[in-house]
Amino acid sequence: MAKIAFKPGTMIYPLPAVMVTSGDTPESYNIATVAWTGTICTEPPMCYISLRKQRHTHDIIMRTREYVINLTTEALARATDWCGVRSGRDYDKFREMQLTPQPAQVVKAPLIAESPLNIECRVIEVKELGSHDMFISEVVAINAEESLIDKGTGAFQFNHAAPLAYSHGKYYGLGEKLGGFGFSVKKKKH
Amino acid sequence: MAKIAFKPGTMIYPLPAVMVTSGDTPESYNIATVAWTGTICTEPPMCYISLRKQRHTHDIIMRTREYVINLTTEALARATDWCGVRSGRDYDKFREMQLTPQPAQVVKAPLIAESPLNIECRVIEVKELGSHDMFISEVVAINAEESLIDKGTGAFQFNHAAPLAYSHGKYYGLGEKLGGFGFSVKKKKH
Repeated sequence: MAKIAFKPGTMIYPLPAVMVTSGDTPESYNIATVAWTGTICTEPPMCYISLRKQRHTHDIIMRTREYVINLTTEALARATDWCGVRSGRDYDKFREMQLTPQPAQVVKAPLIAESPLNIECRVIEVKELGSHDMFISEVVAINAEESLIDKGTGAFQFNHAAPLAYSHGKYYGLGEKLGGFGFSVKKKKH
Repeated sequence: MAKIAFKPGTMIYPLPAVMVTSGDTPESYNIATVAWTGTICTEPPMCYISLRKQRHTHDIIMRTREYVINLTTEALARATDWCGVRSGRDYDKFREMQLTPQPAQVVKAPLIAESPLNIECRVIEVKELGSHDMFISEVVAINAEESLIDKGTGAFQFNHAAPLAYSHGKYYGLGEKLGGFGFSVKKKKH
């Protein structure tokens, strides 16, 4: 393929678009949508979010050092987008989006009840990188929607909840399943 | 929704499954598939990959301090999976998967010609976290497939290349487009 040089930029996609909840009292609860997020270590389980210093959620997490990553679904696409373009300084986002705060196990930040998976995180280190600060965090608890747990295997079937993906400025559902991890080396069943 | 407590783990999805190329000579070129990757800063553009210490690519990048993130597509699903389950200690992955190494602009690691977007990265810091080391990196160059660049706007249309997503152990294409960033606050056109 013929390649053209592009200015260095942020082009890794598709990504999750997660709703990050923070705050330690109902009055301070907030929701921020974040795509600069991911897993950085399997054992112990660690993840990160990167936030601009100007965001309201940045202020809250600098104070509380904890937050919740709420995975999003096609049904939450509008709320996900709205919480990414509006500020918690101006709106009570739970009320505006008719989302329900739910108590977490370990952290004071609330879960979003309507999200099928809520990952409770505690900040270990804040790295100032430039436009964004990276919050390097440990996963301290996970809350999974009961109806998505396979009764036979105990596995959490997030893919049955119509996950939301974000790619180059657009939101998508997932499409055709192309195979499971390791499919390229599996022997065909006869 | 009723929530069940899960053991803390790595549950953030969907993610990209990128092919990371490394090496500074054709004999040392390797490909590793990585889902623990993402953007950590917009300006300057920075990203990361996390790798287990045992991986062949870990050794190479510790030596060369540079690599390329090659975005993947549905057409590359099988090669993406295969490069994630086989080791470069045992195979010449370019040859086995019939992929074509292409010279990069800045780094010595090769691009994968068949990938529509190749992100050249230089390591700034290696953070030992546990099972994985995180390679905090700057984006030093980007190579974009010419045919995916919109002639009118100059924008790179990665979403036209059928991007590959990885979610809870399965590979997917992208599905229905649900809206662009900011769609929830846009006025409808009359």
